[in-house]
Amino acid sequence: MTTQSTVAGAPLSATELGRLDAWWRAANYLAVGQIYLMDNPLLRTPLEPQHIKPRLLGHWGTTPGLTFVYAHLNRVISARDLDLINIMGPGHGGPAAVAAAYLDGTYSELYPRVTPDEHGLERLFTQFSFPGGIPSHVAPETPGSIHEGGELGYALSHAYGAAFDNPDLTVAAIVGDGEAESGPLAASWHSTKFVDPRRDGAVLPILHLNGYKIASPTVLARIPSDELDSLLRGVGHTPYVVSGSDPEEMHQAFAATLDHCLDEIKQIQDEARAVGAGSTAPRRPWPMIVLRSPKGWTGPDELDGQRVEGFWRSHQVPIGGVRDDDGHRQVLESWMRSYRPEELFDDHGAPVAEIAGLYPRGERRMSANPHTNGGLLLRDLHLPDFRDHAVPVDGPGTGAVEATDTLGGYLREVVRRNDDNFRMFAPDENNSNRLQDVLEVTGRTWNAETEPYDEGLAVDGRLMEILSEHTCQGWLEGYLLTGRHGLFSCYEAFTHIVDSMFNQHAKWLKTTRELDWRQAIASLNYLLTSHVWHQDHNGFSHQDPGFIDHVVNKKADVVRVYLPPDANTLLTVVDGCLRSKEQVNVIVAGKQPALQYLTMDQAVEHAAKGIDRWDWASNDDGREPDVVLACAGDVPTLETVAAAALLREHLPELRVRVVNVVDLMRLQAEEAHPHGLSSADFDALFTTDRPVLFAYHGYPWLIHRLTYARTNHDNFHVRGYVEEGTTTTPFDMTVLNRLDRFDLAIDVIDHVPGLGEEAAAVREMLTDKLAEHRAYVQTHGEDMPEIRDWRWETR
Amino acid sequence: MTTQSTVAGAPLSATELGRLDAWWRAANYLAVGQIYLMDNPLLRTPLEPQHIKPRLLGHWGTTPGLTFVYAHLNRVISARDLDLINIMGPGHGGPAAVAAAYLDGTYSELYPRVTPDEHGLERLFTQFSFPGGIPSHVAPETPGSIHEGGELGYALSHAYGAAFDNPDLTVAAIVGDGEAESGPLAASWHSTKFVDPRRDGAVLPILHLNGYKIASPTVLARIPSDELDSLLRGVGHTPYVVSGSDPEEMHQAFAATLDHCLDEIKQIQDEARAVGAGSTAPRRPWPMIVLRSPKGWTGPDELDGQRVEGFWRSHQVPIGGVRDDDGHRQVLESWMRSYRPEELFDDHGAPVAEIAGLYPRGERRMSANPHTNGGLLLRDLHLPDFRDHAVPVDGPGTGAVEATDTLGGYLREVVRRNDDNFRMFAPDENNSNRLQDVLEVTGRTWNAETEPYDEGLAVDGRLMEILSEHTCQGWLEGYLLTGRHGLFSCYEAFTHIVDSMFNQHAKWLKTTRELDWRQAIASLNYLLTSHVWHQDHNGFSHQDPGFIDHVVNKKADVVRVYLPPDANTLLTVVDGCLRSKEQVNVIVAGKQPALQYLTMDQAVEHAAKGIDRWDWASNDDGREPDVVLACAGDVPTLETVAAAALLREHLPELRVRVVNVVDLMRLQAEEAHPHGLSSADFDALFTTDRPVLFAYHGYPWLIHRLTYARTNHDNFHVRGYVEEGTTTTPFDMTVLNRLDRFDLAIDVIDHVPGLGEEAAAVREMLTDKLAEHRAYVQTHGEDMPEIRDWRWETR
Repeated sequence: MTTQSTVAGAPLSATELGRLDAWWRAANYLAVGQIYLMDNPLLRTPLEPQHIKPRLLGHWGTTPGLTFVYAHLNRVISARDLDLINIMGPGHGGPAAVAAAYLDGTYSELYPRVTPDEHGLERLFTQFSFPGGIPSHVAPETPGSIHEGGELGYALSHAYGAAFDNPDLTVAAIVGDGEAESGPLAASWHSTKFVDPRRDGAVLPILHLNGYKIASPTVLARIPSDELDSLLRGVGHTPYVVSGSDPEEMHQAFAATLDHCLDEIKQIQDEARAVGAGSTAPRRPWPMIVLRSPKGWTGPDELDGQRVEGFWRSHQVPIGGVRDDDGHRQVLESWMRSYRPEELFDDHGAPVAEIAGLYPRGERRMSANPHTNGGLLLRDLHLPDFRDHAVPVDGPGTGAVEATDTLGGYLREVVRRNDDNFRMFAPDENNSNRLQDVLEVTGRTWNAETEPYDEGLAVDGRLMEILSEHTCQGWLEGYLLTGRHGLFSCYEAFTHIVDSMFNQHAKWLKTTRELDWRQAIASLNYLLTSHVWHQDHNGFSHQDPGFIDHVVNKKADVVRVYLPPDANTLLTVVDGCLRSKEQVNVIVAGKQPALQYLTMDQAVEHAAKGIDRWDWASNDDGREPDVVLACAGDVPTLETVAAAALLREHLPELRVRVVNVVDLMRLQAEEAHPHGLSSADFDALFTTDRPVLFAYHGYPWLIHRLTYARTNHDNFHVRGYVEEGTTTTPFDMTVLNRLDRFDLAIDVIDHVPGLGEEAAAVREMLTDKLAEHRAYVQTHGEDMPEIRDWRWETR
Repeated sequence: MTTQSTVAGAPLSATELGRLDAWWRAANYLAVGQIYLMDNPLLRTPLEPQHIKPRLLGHWGTTPGLTFVYAHLNRVISARDLDLINIMGPGHGGPAAVAAAYLDGTYSELYPRVTPDEHGLERLFTQFSFPGGIPSHVAPETPGSIHEGGELGYALSHAYGAAFDNPDLTVAAIVGDGEAESGPLAASWHSTKFVDPRRDGAVLPILHLNGYKIASPTVLARIPSDELDSLLRGVGHTPYVVSGSDPEEMHQAFAATLDHCLDEIKQIQDEARAVGAGSTAPRRPWPMIVLRSPKGWTGPDELDGQRVEGFWRSHQVPIGGVRDDDGHRQVLESWMRSYRPEELFDDHGAPVAEIAGLYPRGERRMSANPHTNGGLLLRDLHLPDFRDHAVPVDGPGTGAVEATDTLGGYLREVVRRNDDNFRMFAPDENNSNRLQDVLEVTGRTWNAETEPYDEGLAVDGRLMEILSEHTCQGWLEGYLLTGRHGLFSCYEAFTHIVDSMFNQHAKWLKTTRELDWRQAIASLNYLLTSHVWHQDHNGFSHQDPGFIDHVVNKKADVVRVYLPPDANTLLTVVDGCLRSKEQVNVIVAGKQPALQYLTMDQAVEHAAKGIDRWDWASNDDGREPDVVLACAGDVPTLETVAAAALLREHLPELRVRVVNVVDLMRLQAEEAHPHGLSSADFDALFTTDRPVLFAYHGYPWLIHRLTYARTNHDNFHVRGYVEEGTTTTPFDMTVLNRLDRFDLAIDVIDHVPGLGEEAAAVREMLTDKLAEHRAYVQTHGEDMPEIRDWRWETR
């Protein structure tokens, strides 16, 4: 490939060029060594079969591009004293990051057994993709990373998340051309309209076109260059292309381009920051680099007559069968020796001083930059007293309060007090979710065109809304991983859009909890609202409570699920979540006017217990109940309480106990989850032999899955959402899914033995009520007044 | 807004213009009526409170844009006799599609109670978003739709899916500017590189910039026009802008533009189709339209002094409180009368002839086009005999076969025999998943630049690979919904990326099953491979078997899950899935060399049963066993069989029954799933009181959730993936999760009562084996030979 570069110039002196190239060769050598060797790491002797790992695992193809960029970033960090981190989108090129951290010295500092000598090198090589060793991807174990990159698509959104509120930080984001085909990545280019050059840092995307995915060419590498240029300008960038394969020419071209881009970034920032307060500079295109280099660059050209370098065959391990095939082993040895290791490592096996001493020191090293170990920088939030936002509750089951609206007032104060450390994220649903009060103290982040009649937009707004759940989640993850706090509010059903991103974040947290050098970061907080029972206007497509099911498959240490029944409980739950660390908290709360049950003091106590008998709604009065009515979630709580009232009115002799669950993980066994109730406590609440009618917010079988090992499980009968829905009234939604008060009361009658004729008559009355409801709702288009106006006190 | 248009011209005569506008006014009138009225549909008398629905639900903002486009598409269909369907990306603008289908006459044909008269109009209005009526979005209930659009992001991928292999079809795809911010939509623009102008139809995207989402401006409406132009050219289009608000001018401009685009499409197709066989025309940019019109166009300008038309306030119901507020009701009445209903509907309330008779007839009506009711066009696949691809099996637990590789040979024949009716989809993982044999008879679809050394690319290839699970799934859905067949192969962990898309498709199927006029379409088939136990090279990020958990939350009628233990069983399972309709089939199968258990005949019988006792692996010999070892999935089956062998060798007196599960839904109760086993059959297999050790492919609690109501459930002990993983050996993965043969055998000893000292000694031996494994694997980096070479016959 002929070298081509938009930016002209050859800024590197011969000495600089030599050092840069030596560093690059050393990193590539270490990368290949990790993939192949378990002995003879410096090739002091010819390669023998026993030096080769029995299982060859790893991804070479992207690796030399990653090391190339790393070398050049090192140069500019030193030259400009930059606070700079890099996100390796192609995180499967793990050997590159590990090699770089080893050359930086960070690796040996964090993992002292991997010493900077031949013995350490052997360990470094052997441990890679080896049982008991380190994973093959850039991972939590990798110094300097906040990005796994096994699942592709989040490099840019993570980078922007890191840059927000870090005005002095530059984030280089390497985007692979495979990743660039993914939806989340494609959407995240538009982050250019959400970054504030004054108070945020800069993101420098480096689109690395090596031309191939696992087995095919990539789209962006195979469209005409003017089409690519057009696309990148269209998302708000000025692209600078560096293309070629000759190392010397490419070093000069990339160095010149990187200098140019950093100058341009500085210019944009200086210009924006020079504008007086209250005014803003117009958005300008940010520079970015398109790096076209061969896949598997500097690797073997071909093997057994088949093209390798510059082709998909170099994606993973380019030469197989190296233990058994002498010829292949010879190709490997020549390849490794082409980096001239004898010039790169001293007699002890440490990197020569020219390499080791050249680049950034201390926290300027990308592998040691504290932004990549965000817990180091974490500052607790200044939290207002949530009690100040308490809703007055005259008595249980009264009032009509929008829980999330109440929360909005509290969040407004959180935003106000933490104006560089807390952001909120939503896919254009913040106000629909009734959190509009936050707009009293901030704007929606917006750095695109405005109209005079626009409302609540601000370049430095702290409420980030884009109609991309992926981008919201990616931004938030990047923000959290670099040591800040946030909240993601989302329509419950569409949280599934980020199921897989949640997986990766939960896996990241699980692993970091096992690493002593990773400091704890703030929890990822989801507020799921506009939930399944409150989507009567959008209908079936918006009705899915399964995100909870998805979440609870992950490690118990990491996940928490809260279903506060009313506004005061929601306040105390959110306060607790904002104080927590290293978790994923899922909070489900409604946005419609709903009954309140607990005063603030009661709510605090209830949330702390996580599960409790509600005395006022029960009439078992300290005795063993005939039946337990359990509930979790605001709508199920309402129907349960109403069912209890019906039973008390019509079957006053029946002893009913009402149990409300806020912290869903209380249901699990002690040994299954840190919040799990002991058997004794569980049995005391749910009895060991009485029927339990459980009204649950989501898919009913989740309750069975959480409680299957409990003594009384065989008597659990769970009602929940059974995938029946449409645009209908809120109460009719519960009827369609048999979660309504009438069906719950009927269930009780059907499950409590020996109730006799009186109960049979009540059952008939309840059945008539259901028929009456159906007729009414289909005629009037709304629920019967006795449903709409129901209060506990009216029972 | 001043009218602006890239294409000049005013092609409409005054008569044409008048009719077009009359149709548009009629559609808008019907849309508003659906949102607001339950009586007095033609405004024969002044609006009274009782004419107004008690609950006002619906989305007005996008609706007039949808009807505008529909009117113009009608014109060109008639003028050019086009076979054309349209995808309404903003599917929440449901009233538009319903209004159009009513004006087409289709609505009354399919729903005879909604007659084309005043009485029918009243029903049409009342039923919308009304209990017992129709949903508020474009939905399965909507004639002419293959797209729900409540969850945004899939308009373009659905459109392309419909266009593939339909050379005479044109698909207009309306993309809302909210939707355009989403990741899946952003990625799907690149479909331009996967469409073949010769054998596929054309997609005409219409990007509708009305400027607002729910509560904010949209990104694409607020970037400079040259930036937008650049972006759209960058994804392979020539954009033509129509911008304005004056109806007459907009009609002329849009008509001219639409004519121009259709001419250009024809030119591209003619040119491509004129090229001789074996050669291809270079890819040319496809035309597209950017339509800028006010949100809530033709609605009230403002209300109570607040801006409505052209602002986010018109997103849903623009005027609230219409029952109680006389002023608001007056605004509504004026608005509705502004469409001059008296000119549009005759004395009986039917659309006047000018409107009703003007546009396409019969199947040319977009609401009646058979492509939108794909089952009408469905042709069964020509399936080869899967027995021809059987793997010879000398005895159970022998051999080393890659199941998906075997399947590849079969799929090659499916592709060969169905070259216009079957496609395969994968996110660049087809060959990694060992399905490479299909490339013997087709290429990877590719209409971008090629290099001489490329392999297996073809403009008309039938294997569709793009590194976007969203795009793959969207294409496949569009392809299925228009009456064709397909298979999506995906890394198991990353299938979660399309969790939410699966939800929507499953909901679509659930609803269509309840509609008599919707004909059954082919099932959506997922092949999940490169599964959790075979990701030892990629590690933790690639290890997640939870897609199954996600799927089984949906309606039992719709979902099936298969875990074939070996290659022959996989063949017969896939054959069955390819014959099935209206389901989602999830098939999990490994790609690594693995033991085979069943001959083809045995496999057919086993798959038909779905669950069975394996006689050869059991030694209960017709008696009640001491323990049941159950397994589901290839790796758990191997470990279970190996555990049975260990027990037979070391505790020969112990009566062990081995049960293998292929069809996971067999575990559910009869009443819970159509495939559920009866209690009697279940108890016969699993006993009513013996310990059951269940080795399961995925998260273990799923088995508890499926079996909690079974008699013997309290004795079920399930092992599965408990979220422990990294890059390690395949056997070590099972050890990390306690699913390995040694732990399973230990579990048996721990759970079968009264085994005595001999068993204690065996337990110690097994514990030593585990220690031996750990030491070996961490030294040698691979599994012990006795593990690697284990065969049932060697026991």
